[in-house]
Amino acid sequence: MANLREISVSAALNLLSAFAFLVAFAILRLQPINDRVYFPKWYRRRIRNSPRRSGVCLTRFVNLDWRTYIKFLNWMPAALRMPELELIDHAGLDSVVYIRIYLLGLKVIGPLAVLAFLVLVPVNWTGETLEGVKNLAYNDIDKLSISNVPDGSKRFWVHIVMSYVFALWTFYVLYVEYKEVAAMRLRYLASENRRPGQFTVLVRNVPPDPDETVSEHIEHFFRVNHPDSYLTHQVVYNANKLAKLVQKKKSLQNWYTYYLNKYERTSKRPTTREALGREKVLSDPKAIVKAAFVSFKSRWAAAVCAQTQLSHNPTIWLTEWAPEPRDVYWRNLAIPYFDLTIRRLLMAIALFFLIFFFMIPIAFVQSLANIEGIEKVFPFLTPLIETKSVRSFIQGFLPGIVLKIFLILLPTILMMMSKVEGFSSRSSLDRRSAGKYHLFLLVNVFLGSIITGTAFQQLKTFLHQPPTEIPKTVGESIPMKATFFITYTMVDGWAGIAAEILRLVPLVIFHLKNMFLVKTEQDREEAMDPGCLNFATYEPKIQFYFLLGLVYSAVTPVLLPFVIIFFAFSYVVFRHQVINVYDQRYESGGSFWPDVHRRLLIGLLISQFLLMGLLSTKNIEKSTIALLPLPILTIWFHVYCKGRFQSAFVRFSLQDAMTKDTLERATEPNLNLRAYLKDAYVHPVFKGRSHFDSPLLVPDEENNTLVLTRRSS
Amino acid sequence: MANLREISVSAALNLLSAFAFLVAFAILRLQPINDRVYFPKWYRRRIRNSPRRSGVCLTRFVNLDWRTYIKFLNWMPAALRMPELELIDHAGLDSVVYIRIYLLGLKVIGPLAVLAFLVLVPVNWTGETLEGVKNLAYNDIDKLSISNVPDGSKRFWVHIVMSYVFALWTFYVLYVEYKEVAAMRLRYLASENRRPGQFTVLVRNVPPDPDETVSEHIEHFFRVNHPDSYLTHQVVYNANKLAKLVQKKKSLQNWYTYYLNKYERTSKRPTTREALGREKVLSDPKAIVKAAFVSFKSRWAAAVCAQTQLSHNPTIWLTEWAPEPRDVYWRNLAIPYFDLTIRRLLMAIALFFLIFFFMIPIAFVQSLANIEGIEKVFPFLTPLIETKSVRSFIQGFLPGIVLKIFLILLPTILMMMSKVEGFSSRSSLDRRSAGKYHLFLLVNVFLGSIITGTAFQQLKTFLHQPPTEIPKTVGESIPMKATFFITYTMVDGWAGIAAEILRLVPLVIFHLKNMFLVKTEQDREEAMDPGCLNFATYEPKIQFYFLLGLVYSAVTPVLLPFVIIFFAFSYVVFRHQVINVYDQRYESGGSFWPDVHRRLLIGLLISQFLLMGLLSTKNIEKSTIALLPLPILTIWFHVYCKGRFQSAFVRFSLQDAMTKDTLERATEPNLNLRAYLKDAYVHPVFKGRSHFDSPLLVPDEENNTLVLTRRSS
Repeated sequence: MANLREISVSAALNLLSAFAFLVAFAILRLQPINDRVYFPKWYRRRIRNSPRRSGVCLTRFVNLDWRTYIKFLNWMPAALRMPELELIDHAGLDSVVYIRIYLLGLKVIGPLAVLAFLVLVPVNWTGETLEGVKNLAYNDIDKLSISNVPDGSKRFWVHIVMSYVFALWTFYVLYVEYKEVAAMRLRYLASENRRPGQFTVLVRNVPPDPDETVSEHIEHFFRVNHPDSYLTHQVVYNANKLAKLVQKKKSLQNWYTYYLNKYERTSKRPTTREALGREKVLSDPKAIVKAAFVSFKSRWAAAVCAQTQLSHNPTIWLTEWAPEPRDVYWRNLAIPYFDLTIRRLLMAIALFFLIFFFMIPIAFVQSLANIEGIEKVFPFLTPLIETKSVRSFIQGFLPGIVLKIFLILLPTILMMMSKVEGFSSRSSLDRRSAGKYHLFLLVNVFLGSIITGTAFQQLKTFLHQPPTEIPKTVGESIPMKATFFITYTMVDGWAGIAAEILRLVPLVIFHLKNMFLVKTEQDREEAMDPGCLNFATYEPKIQFYFLLGLVYSAVTPVLLPFVIIFFAFSYVVFRHQVINVYDQRYESGGSFWPDVHRRLLIGLLISQFLLMGLLSTKNIEKSTIALLPLPILTIWFHVYCKGRFQSAFVRFSLQDAMTKDTLERATEPNLNLRAYLKDAYVHPVFKGRSHFDSPLLVPDEENNTLVLTRRSS
Repeated sequence: MANLREISVSAALNLLSAFAFLVAFAILRLQPINDRVYFPKWYRRRIRNSPRRSGVCLTRFVNLDWRTYIKFLNWMPAALRMPELELIDHAGLDSVVYIRIYLLGLKVIGPLAVLAFLVLVPVNWTGETLEGVKNLAYNDIDKLSISNVPDGSKRFWVHIVMSYVFALWTFYVLYVEYKEVAAMRLRYLASENRRPGQFTVLVRNVPPDPDETVSEHIEHFFRVNHPDSYLTHQVVYNANKLAKLVQKKKSLQNWYTYYLNKYERTSKRPTTREALGREKVLSDPKAIVKAAFVSFKSRWAAAVCAQTQLSHNPTIWLTEWAPEPRDVYWRNLAIPYFDLTIRRLLMAIALFFLIFFFMIPIAFVQSLANIEGIEKVFPFLTPLIETKSVRSFIQGFLPGIVLKIFLILLPTILMMMSKVEGFSSRSSLDRRSAGKYHLFLLVNVFLGSIITGTAFQQLKTFLHQPPTEIPKTVGESIPMKATFFITYTMVDGWAGIAAEILRLVPLVIFHLKNMFLVKTEQDREEAMDPGCLNFATYEPKIQFYFLLGLVYSAVTPVLLPFVIIFFAFSYVVFRHQVINVYDQRYESGGSFWPDVHRRLLIGLLISQFLLMGLLSTKNIEKSTIALLPLPILTIWFHVYCKGRFQSAFVRFSLQDAMTKDTLERATEPNLNLRAYLKDAYVHPVFKGRSHFDSPLLVPDEENNTLVLTRRSS
């Protein structure tokens, strides 16, 4: 364990390296040649153009204006300056709500830190247990922590009271924040312009009909059951193969343009072939999957349809709000109900094994990836490898690299698992993956760092220990791991954020692409990779720092400033990135907030149980009973907030729908909604085709009242 | 532990006593004087009249026809004869679905018993562990049980395989039954006549409005948000005080009629006073609570409103299907959302203490209710009590009686707790109470019988044991408790059912009332207490026998026939009672089935964990891993069935609503729905009053299109 001086040195070093990153960033971003790496959002929005072509050749690539270098940190106030409303307009609600999580971290942990330093640190410092114990390795940090209070001391009641104060403060901030985010979402939905999704419902599990096609069946069903409000529908094609073809064509098209520019040649080939595939899919009745986007004449009717049950068999005619077109995950629209339940069962089992047994395949790969293995596969490397220094290097680093590669791949693996589970929108996929990653971090990073040994060994220990022993075992080692988590916060947290703003990988890739691949202006556009807020990976990491803050607030308050610096730094950096870099792939209106809130409360619960465990080893009578109301209160708070706010994120109220409908009817009485919705929910590969109409031919308004069916039922 | 011969003797005795009960029942029911006790349902339905007044005086009270006594068991085939459809018509779906639980018991446990006797009993019998152990007290029953198989024997794999067969059979029967009950419910709802509840939604938590009364506010809100379908609404009055007054008046009225008959006197007093109270409530705006029954022009519109969210604040304008008028629990209609969450938290904590610490107040009362206490309160009894035999009798029985009284009061206590939780219909109150009682039986009767000691001591043991140890501890003692549970089944189960059909308490009370209280014909009608199926008490008891059957199917199959006899006997008895006696207070359309199904699966899960625990003490390698998929499968099966069927019990599909609406519009185009619904949801104390119209005045059809509001919003 490091002492306070060592921690200070480490902190100074980490701050310095973060500062170095910032300086590097400040210099790199000022170079016009890097403009598309650091300001891609403005390019995407066509507000910024390629660096001015005029002037000396050199200034097109390098910024020679020395004055701009002086104010190299002025991106920070600039990032903070844009008001929230403008930011919502500029980057969408998802991004704004996301960066509010960091602000929430400051709001929760900040006052906790102040209170802890004012009350708990003096109480701990004057505890003086560790003064007496000479042969025990203790350090300054331990003297500030709960370990310094002697067993059975009445001082622990201060910790118990403070844990109540901390919990109540957290409840207050979380409640206000949930309320505010819910209000922001409602305002956002209310102020939103007309959007196809407002009128449209995704219908899944359309039952097969012996007499009618899927499209006819859908039309008749809705004309009967929503006679006054059904407008039109859009069947979904299984265009997975076609999508690949289109991808291929896109690259060919690019080459074609390239050659066209260069040699003025023509070639119609790829387009024709793709058109053929398109026709084939559109004319193949088997390509129509049992799902559709059904649109209504009003938002009110769509809200009704999305929230009610259509058939008495709840596994068919399933309705939900249509995700916005960009958000639809087309591959998953046609999975039958039974398959879904099986898939989710299998993925739940797989997740369990992934979390608790992931070390087994890693160890296996590590055993393969040794010196002998490499020599077998690449015999020509043998002389090099057999050099002593290289050999020891490989032996030392290879296992670590295998693990690192796994950890880098992990979010992708979790996302694949979520896709198998069959969710139909990218936003829900992201939310599910975040949940999985959160569990993984909780078990393998948090518990794994506290109790050494693999997760599987922990599982075994926990199963063979009484349930009251678990918090004790973990709680007891909590204070001892404080320095480790301080270092972790600096190395993973601070450095991670600094790397985020530097964008080294996109920078290198952009310039490589620019050098070797870019042939057309469109290529340059695509070489620019703005990326997006990766909710599935970032949010669980934030939760981890929340957890650290909550757990250590009553135990080792000295950790809190490090977490606060992480939140503050992240807030500024992500606000900058959201303004200048990221290009969101979809907009879900902050629908992930209930998950954030729930996971935060899980962190709070864990911190409470661990404190109970820790105090029960300190010989204070009735400490467990005194702390027992805390988790009960926390669970009740969760239930209350869920009932109070969650539906704002799940349902759309009829009152709001009616308000918007009435307003629109008054301002635009002659709106042709059918034309507006015509191509909204067409699979992206069919987008923008004029010949795309035959099988989706919409009947004229006059025919609508007549429902023709070949059946008698 | 008793051996097989002792159990047989006990079974014979119990069968004999049950038979004696049946003979007593057969004789008593044939006496005309008891007719109103044993056939009250037919009186309520006005199909049967008072015993014929003609004939000799004696035959009016005693049946002298000896031939009827010979066929004294012919009520049994009579009870089984009525076909199910007719029974639904006669007694309602709730009763029919309820007695199907007993039939389900036969379907699940019957084949399990056959298989267990064919496969497991021979395997156990030839195990011969206990033959060798001479000094251990073993008996014949243990030789048939799993205890007879030696540790580490390969024979246990037969038990493991059979537990899979049992689980799969249970899944199959439960799935078919859930499907059938859901179909019955849907058929019932589809074939139902027009009912006010089909058009009506209960709206709770109407927000206060500064400018409008509750009634105006509701009308305006629904005219705006359901413009095409809103029909009318009925405000709810806080008539709790008035209800008491009415109760009082009823008894006065009765006296009045009595005197009227006797002396031809008149007295208008009670009616006038009551009318005054009525006027007072109706004219007091503060008596209107923030809830209402809102009716729509079609079932479709009501279904939409019941399932959708009206306001973006999910704690106001809460809508749900209106329970049928008899089912409404009027007192709970106006509890604000925050109060509800607090009440449920408190009741959850109270339930926890009731289950785990109920012995503390009992012990306290027991310590008070000793000889000295009685002598203090009733000094005149001292000489009697001091007699040695009386003294020892009191000392031996009093503590048991105190406990018995608590157990008799328990369902009432649990029902009161459910009422505090704020549910708005009697059916949901019954379902909630059943859930609480089930937990109590599980912890205090099942676990409490297996592990001696109070529930609190168990809780302590469990908290200080590893989670894997709990199934071991319980599982290990399971085989030893088989004879206890056999006796329990006979004494509590068989005798309870026999007592149920004899109706000794209603019989005595009826004759006492008839002798001393009955003054008018109406009194006689009311002295007749048909009772009803008490779901909240009976269903958890059935679940207890299911649990016994499932737990012992793989361990001590000899218990199964006793459970089967319980189910078969109960089925016949309750079918008879449902046909002839019970008068249901409400009809919920079998909406309790999801609870029954869930609790059955909880029983199955418990049996699986206990088998895992038992086998893990028998030194069979990998038995736990071999059994682990069972609980996972069970949970998955639960999730699957829930998704597949539950909504049939919770929601009403738009398709079904539309079908009924269309049919009705075709057959009765001139139906005046407003008149039909006018008084449907009036508080019972206002029922049948002609002067009841002023504050609920419904505007004419012509005014309906105009929405007047004093507000600008």
